[in-house]
Formats: sequence, C-alpha cells, structure tokens
Amino acid sequence: MSKQILILPGDGIGLEIVAEAVKVLELANRKYQLGFELSYDELGGAAYDKYGVPLADETLERARKADAILLGAVGGPKWDKIDPALRPERGLLKIRSQLGLFGNLRPALLYPQLAAASSLKPEVVAGLDILIVRELTGGIYFGQPRESKVLENGDRMAYDTLPYSESEIRRIAKVGFDMAMVRNKKLCSVDKANVLASSQLWRAVVEEVAKDYPDVELSHMYVDNAAMQLVRAPKQFDVIVTDNMFGDILSDEASMLTGSIGMLPSASLDANNKGMYEPCHGSAPDIAGQGIANPLATILSVSMMLRYSFGQAEAANAIEQAVSNVLDQGLRTGDIWSEGCQKVGTREMGDAVVAAL
Amino acid sequence: MSKQILILPGDGIGLEIVAEAVKVLELANRKYQLGFELSYDELGGAAYDKYGVPLADETLERARKADAILLGAVGGPKWDKIDPALRPERGLLKIRSQLGLFGNLRPALLYPQLAAASSLKPEVVAGLDILIVRELTGGIYFGQPRESKVLENGDRMAYDTLPYSESEIRRIAKVGFDMAMVRNKKLCSVDKANVLASSQLWRAVVEEVAKDYPDVELSHMYVDNAAMQLVRAPKQFDVIVTDNMFGDILSDEASMLTGSIGMLPSASLDANNKGMYEPCHGSAPDIAGQGIANPLATILSVSMMLRYSFGQAEAANAIEQAVSNVLDQGLRTGDIWSEGCQKVGTREMGDAVVAAL
Ligand SMILES: CC(C)[C@H](C(=O)O)[C@@H](O)C(=O)O
Ligand SMILES: CC(C)[C@H](C(=O)O)[C@@H](O)C(=O)O
Repeated sequence: MSKQILILPGDGIGLEIVAEAVKVLELANRKYQLGFELSYDELGGAAYDKYGVPLADETLERARKADAILLGAVGGPKWDKIDPALRPERGLLKIRSQLGLFGNLRPALLYPQLAAASSLKPEVVAGLDILIVRELTGGIYFGQPRESKVLENGDRMAYDTLPYSESEIRRIAKVGFDMAMVRNKKLCSVDKANVLASSQLWRAVVEEVAKDYPDVELSHMYVDNAAMQLVRAPKQFDVIVTDNMFGDILSDEASMLTGSIGMLPSASLDANNKGMYEPCHGSAPDIAGQGIANPLATILSVSMMLRYSFGQAEAANAIEQAVSNVLDQGLRTGDIWSEGCQKVGTREMGDAVVAAL
Repeated sequence: MSKQILILPGDGIGLEIVAEAVKVLELANRKYQLGFELSYDELGGAAYDKYGVPLADETLERARKADAILLGAVGGPKWDKIDPALRPERGLLKIRSQLGLFGNLRPALLYPQLAAASSLKPEVVAGLDILIVRELTGGIYFGQPRESKVLENGDRMAYDTLPYSESEIRRIAKVGFDMAMVRNKKLCSVDKANVLASSQLWRAVVEEVAKDYPDVELSHMYVDNAAMQLVRAPKQFDVIVTDNMFGDILSDEASMLTGSIGMLPSASLDANNKGMYEPCHGSAPDIAGQGIANPLATILSVSMMLRYSFGQAEAANAIEQAVSNVLDQGLRTGDIWSEGCQKVGTREMGDAVVAAL
C-alpha cells in the first residue's frame, strides 16, 4: 500500500535543506520498505511567484490527499511589499487551518555535542529535553471578528479576537497529556487565567481532561512566569501545553535555550496523526543559495514524520542515531560550528547522515 | 508646596519591603527637602480583607489625589478561591486603568556585583541594560467584548478582544522614543504584524511617530523572534516598546536574564508623569513575614519615583548610588546571596541603604 508524501520546499534555504532531507527520506523508504511516493509543489513566496497566491487550491487539494507533508520554510524580503493577504506566511497559516493541523509539537532538545552553543550556563541547560505542545489552528491567529477601521472621531483602530471552545481545548490538552504519558509524565499548562476569559476556560477544561490521566502530574503556570522560568530553570519542564500565541512565543524562546535552532524539527498533526513536518527555523534568506544552511532540523523532521504519522519508530530512531553519529564525527555546519570541529556545507552534512544511516 | 505620596504595601512581602523603602523615602524627603506627605491604604488581598473589594472607591479617590503612589505587591494563596472578579490582581488592573497609567517602564539591568546570579553566560549578559516600555491600560487586558458562554451544541466557549486605537499606540510609542532619546537612541518595537490586525496598526503608527524622532534608530521585531533574541543576544536591545500582553511576557523574560529579579523596580506613568512605582517581583507569599525578602527593588522604585514624577534626578541618583555601595559592601539578601558575601535580612538591608545615603 503506497503512501503519498507531499514535499513543499518553500522559500530561501528551504530548497537546499529539503533536498538533503529527501535523500534521507528516500534511503529510509528503500531500507525499511515504507512504500512512500514523493511529489512536489510550492508554498509561500515560491507559490506566489508561480500561482499568484501563497497556497494554490490545487496544492491544498494535493496536501489533503497526501499522507504526510514535508515543508522547508517560507518567507523572505522579496515578498515584503506585496499585499499582506498574499504574503508567504499566509500560505502557511492557511494550510495549517485548512488541514486541521491543530497539534503542533516543538521539541527543545539540547544535543550533548552542542552544549557549548547555548547562551545559558552549561549546568542550567545540560540534558535539556522539553516538548512544547502548541495549539495551532485556533485562538487569536484565526479568531473572528478582526478588523481595522476609522472611528467617528477620525482615530484609526484595529482589533483581533481570541476565542477558544471547549472542544478545541480538550483535543489539544489530550495531545499534551498523551505526550506526557510517553515522556516523564509531567505536564505544565500555560495560560493567563488571571486576566483572560479564554484562559479561564482553558484552565477549567485542562483540569477536566486531567481526570483521564491520573498518572500525569499537572501544573498550571501564567505565561509571564513561564517565560521567566524557561530562562531561570528550564529543566523543571517536561511537556508544556499552551495556546497558539503563547506557544508561538514560548516555543521560540525554548528553542533558543539550546543555542542550536538549526537542529530543531517540528510536527503539526491533525486528529488522525496526519501531519506536516518542518524545521523550527525560518527561511534564512540571508544565506539562501550558498549551500551552507544546516539541514539537520529538516532531516529530524523526517524522523518525526516516520514516528508520528507512520508509526515507524525503528526507522525514526535510526535517523536520529545517524544525526547523533554525524555530530560525534565532529561535522558541523556554520551555525553550530565551534573550534576543533570540521565545518561542512549543507550537502556534505546531508551525505554524512545518509552514510551514517 | 507639599506633595502627597500614597503608600500601598499590598500583600505578602509587600509590607516588609515597603517599610524599608519608606525609610529611604523619608530620609530623601528630609535631606532634599522634597515636601512629601505620606499616607497609607490597602490594595489587593489586604483591601479585600478590609473593604471586601481589591480596590475600594475611597482608595481609588485617594490615589487620584496623590502625586505619586508606592506599591509593594499583591496576591497570595489566601485569596485563590474567591470570586475571580475580586482577586487581588483585579485591584492592580483597576488602579492602572482608572488612573490612566498607560506607560509602564521596566528596566532590566544587570548589577556588575551580581553578574554571577544570571543563568546566562557572563559574556552574554555582562553590562546588560534594557528598558522595556509596556503599554499598560489597553489591548487584550481590558478589551471588550469578552465573554464566556455555552454554544447551541452545548460546547462552552470563551473569547477576549485585543483592540488598539491610533491614539493609544501613539502615546506609548512617544514614551518609547523619549526614553530612547535619553538612553542609546535605539528603539525596537515588538509586535506580531504578520498575524494580527492590531499589530499592523501598531507598526504603522510607530512608523509615523518615528518621523518626529529622526535621531532614534527604529527597528521592528516579531514577538516570537524577540523572545528568542532576548535569550540569544540581549545586549542588542536598548529600549523595547510593545503592547500590554507582549510586554507582560517579554519584561518578565528580560528581568530573569539578570538573575536578580529582587533588584528590579518599575514605574507606571500617566500622561502627566504621575506614577505608581512598584518592584517587578511579586508578593512571594512563601517567604512573607520572615524578614528575609529583598527590599532593593522597592527602594529603587522610590528612586524611579523621584526621577520620573518629581524630576529629582540628584536624589534619585543618590539612592541608586547608595544601593550600589551596599552591594559593594558585600551585603546580600538570600535571593542574591553568593559565596563570600554577607547574608542580611530585609531590615538590615534597608538600614544599610539608609546609612549609605
Ligand atoms: C510565520 C508565522 C506566521 C508563524 C507563526 O506565528 O505561527 C511562525 O512564527 C511559526 O511559529 O511557525
Ligand atoms: C498580576 C498580573 C495581572 C500582572 C499583569 O499581567 O500585568 C503582572 O503579571 C504584572 O506584570 O504586573
């Protein structure tokens, strides 16, 4: 039974890093007889250039039919001046929303080989392994109404709406608890329940879901405190579950604790674990086309794909092991390079992972 | 001409730390002949206990008439189970809003004497001196409508509204630029303009205000990136201006970069520089009443009061110098203590600052 994988390289370094990840995906496909069939399309600025929109209907259709999607990254200065409704990130938001990819998994993992890259003291971050579960299709990102208008007194004003329904909160809370169950059984739900109505419902529903997970130790934290605690003592966290906007902010903060955002993959899953997989970093237009970008986050996104969408833990583990071996060999792209290591380009890094696999 | 200062010790350690700050305030009053008259009232849980509400009308009236307000901190587990509308923090939000204290100044300053306390590497934070300017009376904190309801299908839902008007943005942007002018002339405006309508207006208005400040180098940053950059390279920032919610999160993150949140004061100003001054840290109920809390953030809040509400730069500088001298003497409360320093209690620390002044 063949499985369809849609590849969306996107913009900037997306093309280069996806090319390396595809090598790894194809090798895993042969080695573990996964029956994957790959096809390609465009998202973001590249889609705007080709189709006039950042996500074409035919691409969305193809994405709906696919069993999983591998994405590079979107955006770049080339599209900074176009109509905001057509900007690259609109394509990303639309595909997340249209495919119902509400469960965003963002691990912040410190590779022992790269411990020195963190701006935090080694003792604060050594062994760091947090998973942020971010709600990805609701909240203020998509809430209606939203509007920009001119008031009667001539003052302009604009507003957004932050809505959450019980069912939206319940399903993402379950993802959080499920992840905690296969990790260290600690879940921290982050909200701003001392100020927001939506957060009060969030907290109440998370408490209800907790009844089905008696083995998980649940805590609640205000988002401002969470932003502090991530800096002060990040290892206190196992799994964090939070809303779309707070998750955007905290997952970026958490990823930077590792000092090597070029290493961090992510998954965005629907209710049936169909998913879109992408590196946490952006399209880095400043280094695009130079063959120096780090492909490891995208390669590790392939590993997440095998694990979460296809239940292929063995193949997923093998890819993670191959990445670790390559780091052990001392190979580093520029972003993670340090004295005494061998600096390599995007392709060499990809080839090294293929060889290690 | 006498000036009225209203003292609101609040809850938890509020009483102890305010007592020390008042000693410093009274000494400055005599020494610089400032003509201050002090009066006291309650806010937060203490107000709930006394008046049945976290901010009584008569207290608000007194606050309106005062020329400046010194606040300790509010909140504690004692009031966790009461009606959310009567919780201590509601009193804080109400006084901010009712007095129009829209300009919240939150410095994140690393004292060289305390450099080791940061969880970040010394080279990343040495000399750190950021000022976060947070909009404090608008946005999602106070936006209407906000509601919690049951939908027809039985699903509960709740929503909040994030509104900003041009005039609200303009006045806080001006505070940001004014602060940048007396510092290093760099202002970073933080928003989420790639997603939020309110942020698009925010960015447009900040750009307009920038025309009046040709000497200030303005940049814009998305909030997720700002949360990352604060961890990666915080010294790239001079002044950050941002909305109420983003400011809540980023100012707490920034304060923790210093590792000594017990040292950080804050000011909340209205259009005429009337202000409420308070430490950035909370009411720390776990150590309340033990005489071990750090009073320096509250003492430094007095210094901010003299500087911003009364234009008494000389007295303000003298207090800051006195605090620095006390640190040079090796005196430390528990939260900032390290090997080789002398551990002192709240009162001893206050007395030492008084002596140094
Ligand atoms: C590009 C942007 C719209 C997006 C988001 O805010 O979700 C990005 O920051 C992310 O976290 O994937
Ligand atoms: C107590 C709370 C409502 C308050 C806020 O969110 O503004 C606090 O976190 C702060 O930053 O002063």
